[in-house]
Amino acid sequence: MTTTQGRIRRRRASKHAAKRGAPPGTAVYTGEVAASVPVDVQVIDYDPSGLRETEAYGTSALTPYTQANTVTWINLTGIHKAEAVQAVCGEFGVHPLWVEDILNPASRSKADMIDDRVLVIARMVRIEDGVLHSEQVSMVLGKGWVLTFQERPGDVWESLRTRIRVGNGRVRRMNSDYLLHALLDQIVDHYFLSLEQLEGRVDGLEALAIDGDKRLDLGIIFELKNELAEFRRTVWPMRESIAALLRMEDGPIGGVVLPYFRDLYDHVVQVMDILETSRERVVGVYELHLAVTSHRLNDIMKLLTIVSTIFIPMTFIAGVYGMNFQHIPELQWDYGYLYVWALMLGTAAIGAVVVYSRRWLS
Amino acid sequence: MTTTQGRIRRRRASKHAAKRGAPPGTAVYTGEVAASVPVDVQVIDYDPSGLRETEAYGTSALTPYTQANTVTWINLTGIHKAEAVQAVCGEFGVHPLWVEDILNPASRSKADMIDDRVLVIARMVRIEDGVLHSEQVSMVLGKGWVLTFQERPGDVWESLRTRIRVGNGRVRRMNSDYLLHALLDQIVDHYFLSLEQLEGRVDGLEALAIDGDKRLDLGIIFELKNELAEFRRTVWPMRESIAALLRMEDGPIGGVVLPYFRDLYDHVVQVMDILETSRERVVGVYELHLAVTSHRLNDIMKLLTIVSTIFIPMTFIAGVYGMNFQHIPELQWDYGYLYVWALMLGTAAIGAVVVYSRRWLS
Amino acid sequence: MTTTQGRIRRRRASKHAAKRGAPPGTAVYTGEVAASVPVDVQVIDYDPSGLRETEAYGTSALTPYTQANTVTWINLTGIHKAEAVQAVCGEFGVHPLWVEDILNPASRSKADMIDDRVLVIARMVRIEDGVLHSEQVSMVLGKGWVLTFQERPGDVWESLRTRIRVGNGRVRRMNSDYLLHALLDQIVDHYFLSLEQLEGRVDGLEALAIDGDKRLDLGIIFELKNELAEFRRTVWPMRESIAALLRMEDGPIGGVVLPYFRDLYDHVVQVMDILETSRERVVGVYELHLAVTSHRLNDIMKLLTIVSTIFIPMTFIAGVYGMNFQHIPELQWDYGYLYVWALMLGTAAIGAVVVYSRRWLS
Amino acid sequence: MTTTQGRIRRRRASKHAAKRGAPPGTAVYTGEVAASVPVDVQVIDYDPSGLRETEAYGTSALTPYTQANTVTWINLTGIHKAEAVQAVCGEFGVHPLWVEDILNPASRSKADMIDDRVLVIARMVRIEDGVLHSEQVSMVLGKGWVLTFQERPGDVWESLRTRIRVGNGRVRRMNSDYLLHALLDQIVDHYFLSLEQLEGRVDGLEALAIDGDKRLDLGIIFELKNELAEFRRTVWPMRESIAALLRMEDGPIGGVVLPYFRDLYDHVVQVMDILETSRERVVGVYELHLAVTSHRLNDIMKLLTIVSTIFIPMTFIAGVYGMNFQHIPELQWDYGYLYVWALMLGTAAIGAVVVYSRRWLS
Amino acid sequence: MTTTQGRIRRRRASKHAAKRGAPPGTAVYTGEVAASVPVDVQVIDYDPSGLRETEAYGTSALTPYTQANTVTWINLTGIHKAEAVQAVCGEFGVHPLWVEDILNPASRSKADMIDDRVLVIARMVRIEDGVLHSEQVSMVLGKGWVLTFQERPGDVWESLRTRIRVGNGRVRRMNSDYLLHALLDQIVDHYFLSLEQLEGRVDGLEALAIDGDKRLDLGIIFELKNELAEFRRTVWPMRESIAALLRMEDGPIGGVVLPYFRDLYDHVVQVMDILETSRERVVGVYELHLAVTSHRLNDIMKLLTIVSTIFIPMTFIAGVYGMNFQHIPELQWDYGYLYVWALMLGTAAIGAVVVYSRRWLS
Repeated sequence: MTTTQGRIRRRRASKHAAKRGAPPGTAVYTGEVAASVPVDVQVIDYDPSGLRETEAYGTSALTPYTQANTVTWINLTGIHKAEAVQAVCGEFGVHPLWVEDILNPASRSKADMIDDRVLVIARMVRIEDGVLHSEQVSMVLGKGWVLTFQERPGDVWESLRTRIRVGNGRVRRMNSDYLLHALLDQIVDHYFLSLEQLEGRVDGLEALAIDGDKRLDLGIIFELKNELAEFRRTVWPMRESIAALLRMEDGPIGGVVLPYFRDLYDHVVQVMDILETSRERVVGVYELHLAVTSHRLNDIMKLLTIVSTIFIPMTFIAGVYGMNFQHIPELQWDYGYLYVWALMLGTAAIGAVVVYSRRWLS
Repeated sequence: MTTTQGRIRRRRASKHAAKRGAPPGTAVYTGEVAASVPVDVQVIDYDPSGLRETEAYGTSALTPYTQANTVTWINLTGIHKAEAVQAVCGEFGVHPLWVEDILNPASRSKADMIDDRVLVIARMVRIEDGVLHSEQVSMVLGKGWVLTFQERPGDVWESLRTRIRVGNGRVRRMNSDYLLHALLDQIVDHYFLSLEQLEGRVDGLEALAIDGDKRLDLGIIFELKNELAEFRRTVWPMRESIAALLRMEDGPIGGVVLPYFRDLYDHVVQVMDILETSRERVVGVYELHLAVTSHRLNDIMKLLTIVSTIFIPMTFIAGVYGMNFQHIPELQWDYGYLYVWALMLGTAAIGAVVVYSRRWLS
Repeated sequence: MTTTQGRIRRRRASKHAAKRGAPPGTAVYTGEVAASVPVDVQVIDYDPSGLRETEAYGTSALTPYTQANTVTWINLTGIHKAEAVQAVCGEFGVHPLWVEDILNPASRSKADMIDDRVLVIARMVRIEDGVLHSEQVSMVLGKGWVLTFQERPGDVWESLRTRIRVGNGRVRRMNSDYLLHALLDQIVDHYFLSLEQLEGRVDGLEALAIDGDKRLDLGIIFELKNELAEFRRTVWPMRESIAALLRMEDGPIGGVVLPYFRDLYDHVVQVMDILETSRERVVGVYELHLAVTSHRLNDIMKLLTIVSTIFIPMTFIAGVYGMNFQHIPELQWDYGYLYVWALMLGTAAIGAVVVYSRRWLS
Repeated sequence: MTTTQGRIRRRRASKHAAKRGAPPGTAVYTGEVAASVPVDVQVIDYDPSGLRETEAYGTSALTPYTQANTVTWINLTGIHKAEAVQAVCGEFGVHPLWVEDILNPASRSKADMIDDRVLVIARMVRIEDGVLHSEQVSMVLGKGWVLTFQERPGDVWESLRTRIRVGNGRVRRMNSDYLLHALLDQIVDHYFLSLEQLEGRVDGLEALAIDGDKRLDLGIIFELKNELAEFRRTVWPMRESIAALLRMEDGPIGGVVLPYFRDLYDHVVQVMDILETSRERVVGVYELHLAVTSHRLNDIMKLLTIVSTIFIPMTFIAGVYGMNFQHIPELQWDYGYLYVWALMLGTAAIGAVVVYSRRWLS
Repeated sequence: MTTTQGRIRRRRASKHAAKRGAPPGTAVYTGEVAASVPVDVQVIDYDPSGLRETEAYGTSALTPYTQANTVTWINLTGIHKAEAVQAVCGEFGVHPLWVEDILNPASRSKADMIDDRVLVIARMVRIEDGVLHSEQVSMVLGKGWVLTFQERPGDVWESLRTRIRVGNGRVRRMNSDYLLHALLDQIVDHYFLSLEQLEGRVDGLEALAIDGDKRLDLGIIFELKNELAEFRRTVWPMRESIAALLRMEDGPIGGVVLPYFRDLYDHVVQVMDILETSRERVVGVYELHLAVTSHRLNDIMKLLTIVSTIFIPMTFIAGVYGMNFQHIPELQWDYGYLYVWALMLGTAAIGAVVVYSRRWLS
């Protein structure tokens, strides 16, 4: 079912717990991808004048890129192969702690700087076959290169690769800090897509609630609230990360690229805004639903009370004249039957007056 | 219906999603205005001594204004024509990222500064034929000029244009930073108008709630809460934007004009205050409504219980003497019928005492 | 009714909207005081050695005070006469924006500094004939003078005037910044009075709620909550204003007077504290009321259920033996009537046992 | 009753209002202690080598201590005697504003510094005869002396006095800033005692709630919530005060004593923590109680519905055959009585099936 | 039962209250461990080249470690023996206030720095025999040594000891600040384990709630909420502590180790994130439960109302013709019995129509 499939994978305590006892900075993969998934290292090396694209299986193949004047984007798919990740990171002098974070697919989004390198961990959310997939990606920015690490094949960067290959875009003319921005920008752009799906479901829920005709399935409200909360927890640390990038002084992000990161920050804030709106709308639906339920109860009880208030006294009167006493004078009256109907209808009228004199029937 | 028409257009994720995959800074219009709406560029150029007003269709016509000593206000209507926006922005050297923001009618309100230029994005809310319209406007402030971009014809600045044309007001004597303030001031002034409409509806709702006579339509509470939340999300980032303008050091906003921006800030905060009050009042109506509903249920059930407690035992007694047993001694009594009435009334009295001895009838 | 009369006048969006389209800084009165209310300008000029008190109708009469070495307090009553306000302000060089704020009786409380002048806008709340009146007052502090502007005759400063006249108090020995403090101190002192009235009503409400005997009028809870919220919105910006005064560096408030302003700040915070307490108590009453209502419903339904559970089965048995079948053996039994009573009482006993075995009667 | 007696006295607006109109800094006692309570001034003067303890009735007796090299602790009990307080304060040059705060037993806890003197106002909570007493104490720290002011005899400092008298403790070796710390430390220590009492009551409430057997008295939840809120408002400004003391630069609190104040701060934060926990637990009890109430209502209604669904149709059938129509064929049947029982039991069975097929009996 | 056993021990006010009256810095144990538990002092002294492990019973045995160039980890188990703690602390010059904190097993987690020493107090949570145990540990970091204090035997550091003993890990090559990090890292890693257990229970609760089939035990929701709140209060000050460590300038934590502490901080924030998620999910379950309860009530009442609306009028008609009046014409009709059935079924049909025409059966 879409509802279940669309759920964003939960970052769970258990993933972290798996590594318990190991020293910090230990390179152990803590995810759950099968070892059979192949590891793939894609290298895109470019400068304004040219582009070289290779697949590097041996580590030594990467050495030239560490010092080159070109911009190099090395994308490793398959972080379950810890040695491969470590090899690439070792070549570029990535801090062991960062390697640990890269290998843990349940890390919290963050941005950290050591010396002139920057680590950004983010969650990439994308739609595949109509279903939301969420996956951690780690990015390391150095002077002239960006390393990216993902867990599974398939990502949100295809259009970026095309732009690099085509070669006359801004990305080819600028440095590796702009490449980092472009990578993050694609990730945030895909957040909007997922939002669109979630908002569509909120719209549907709201329409049902205002209509009020059918019984809203409470489970759906519940699920949607949880999914929005989950999404929010995906995006929230992303906001902090980009704010941290903006605050890094003398960092590797140059002044020319800063406006782009500020723009990115605005987009993430906008995602938060829309999420908050959606959350409030779902809460509104819940409250409306509660109020409608109690209205309905009032309606139900009103009918019961009206019926009872009118008929119970009449039934009592009928019961009285159903008694078998020897001397019930009314029974002998000529117009006894008329009289009892008058009595009963009178009683019913009193009941009706009592009911209608109450506010709750106005 | 006014309720529906008055709803402020929602900034939606879908608008952003439309551009997914494009590089940041790409000039693509992401709104939904028909291409047939004509583009209009209005130029008002003034200094204390004179005023020149033209409509510039070719871009080259704008070149003189970029360097002139006069204050120039260039207002472009119809941002769906991306080329026109780009042409104007190119002439004045506006950053490509800003052009992207200007073209996206779902941007978040913000203020940004690059070099000595300032971009302000805001939402303009105005009443036309008794209905609220909300639309994004972008303003770029440079040395001696202000560019404004709107999506559709019609805006809140007519009285400002008149003041400029009349020519002896403060706006003619001051610089382009004051012009930016005047533009924003008009936008904020119109927020108060919309607020007035919303407050009127809250007043009506509150009156209904305190009256308690008629059943409040829950959907109206719900709609109003959503509209107030929407309005709040329109104004909230505006507050941040103006605060950002006030914090810009060495920016293009001079010390003489700063008090005007502080005043503007106070007005926006006041809008937030009134909105918050309205929101609390609507929540109060909802809570009151819930409590009234449960009171009413108590009233309904009380009537049912009183009727039942009094008549059900009496009906039982009547039933007893309606039985056809051969030997029911009471049936033969001379005053049997009187006796049974005494019994029944006694039972009813006990029921009444039980009911009235409960707290809930006091 | 006190409840209605005691309500603090709402600052409304409409007041601001009235001036829509006018340039910022336009001197237009936006309140609702009749033009017939007379304008009054009271001048109190003093130094430790002497006191001069006049009523100045012409503006030129004020000129000497702008430069004098004495402390001058000029109090203008009747801001609906915009020209009078403007004349006074013009004489003392008050910024046009401030004049606009002074003339708008729906301004938000605030403190602003331009050059060495300080504007403080506050709301004065006082009790007259047992009823709360709320009104905006504006104060402008300059070197050696304080201007105050109010909408209507009658204020909270009579005792201050007496202290100035008596002449041996601290206020006579100190500068105009201390006079500003004294003015604000009187305003805040009167907040406590209004609080006392509101607290008295909260006390009454709480007593009713704990007693639980009578039905609380929900409208009263609702009104009181709204009034407390309104009061809070009056005091809250006052806190910000005084904090802003304390932060003004190199401002006209001297070091000797600063402790007095800190003390004032503490008092405002205490007002907020008490208000917050009152608000929480009212919310508590509401929650208690909801819980009591649902308890009462349980009580009502319990009675109905007990009566029904006991009598409905008995009535059924009586009905059975009221049937007219030819062969109902029990009807012929000698002790049939006794048997049926035993049966009915047994059924009632079972009903009673079922009822009493439930938890909800413990 | 303990519940009522244990209530911490409320700081009320009325106390402040009493002084309305008086100039700030006026020495008027605004509390409610009878004038007959005697005033007592206790002087403890010590240095590492010796200790002098006297009771000073005349003010001039205090003069030597203002300049001495020893540490002097002057404790005045009975602030309702304004002259006594003023005399002591005058001798030590305490600012008039502070005297006003000292005399107002409804001041908010605060810490203020003027020149090299520090005023700390706090609330002292202690248990006497099993009942909580709350009272304001003011402390003024100067170079070599500490003044303390309390409203009534009896305080939390007996053990501190003993430690000073014994003479080999840290307090004898250190300066007056340490004495201030020791005084505050005793006050905070007694907060824990009161907390213990409140926590005990929360424990009892929670036990009742989980048990669910007896009807919780809503009033108790309500009272406890109010008391916790009151306590919180006593402690919260204390936290601010100590934080303010820690921030005072170049103040009279020396670097050696700072760790002690940091420790004190941690204790107050811990008090807040425990209070917050208690508050959440009481809210939890309230929510649990609400949910239990609605569960119980369901139980009640379930019984009523089962009884009605089974017996009402049977009673109807019995009624049918109680009719007196001349030709009711079933009445003549040989096995008519058996048939009607079969019919009635069948109906009851259908009712039972309907009831049991609903989810709500699972 | 696991639920009860798994509960994290509450830090209670009573523990603190036990020491009331003692001077701050007094070394008194305020926990509840029996005096018979043996005290154990374990010393691990290492440098990259070697490792010495001893158990030091006499204090003088520790003297050499205070100045050594090696890294020394001294772990004392059994803080109920105040003298032992004091002896160790005295040897290393630990501030008396810190000794007091170490001896109070109900201290709040915190980090403090005096001179070049750092105190960190944290709560260690671990699983033993499937049950959660929570215990305070105190760590003092000095130049070349770390002291740790625990209440009971058994801790979370076994794997760290192994890493130190094996000797080729990072911990052997680095300084005492890294050792402090390693100790804290183990504590935080074990938080994830406890979280896993709590999350498992939340999962179970959520599954029950969505299923909706069985009656959720409210007590379990209540307990779980309390436990999550308790856990949150354990972790929250830990976050502050580590943030404080990161802010300590010129402290004993070197630049090389800082990234490790930043990483630790990220982990604690992640724990908070997961806790917050769990808390929201439990609240969601509660709300869902409330809504389901009121739905169920509607269902119950609907059945009652349907049965009553259909049968009560029919029973009345039957009652009418059960009356014994002499002249009831219908009774003599040939098709009277058919007529009455038609009448009754018609009435029932009307009842059914009334019921089904209401929204609440759609």
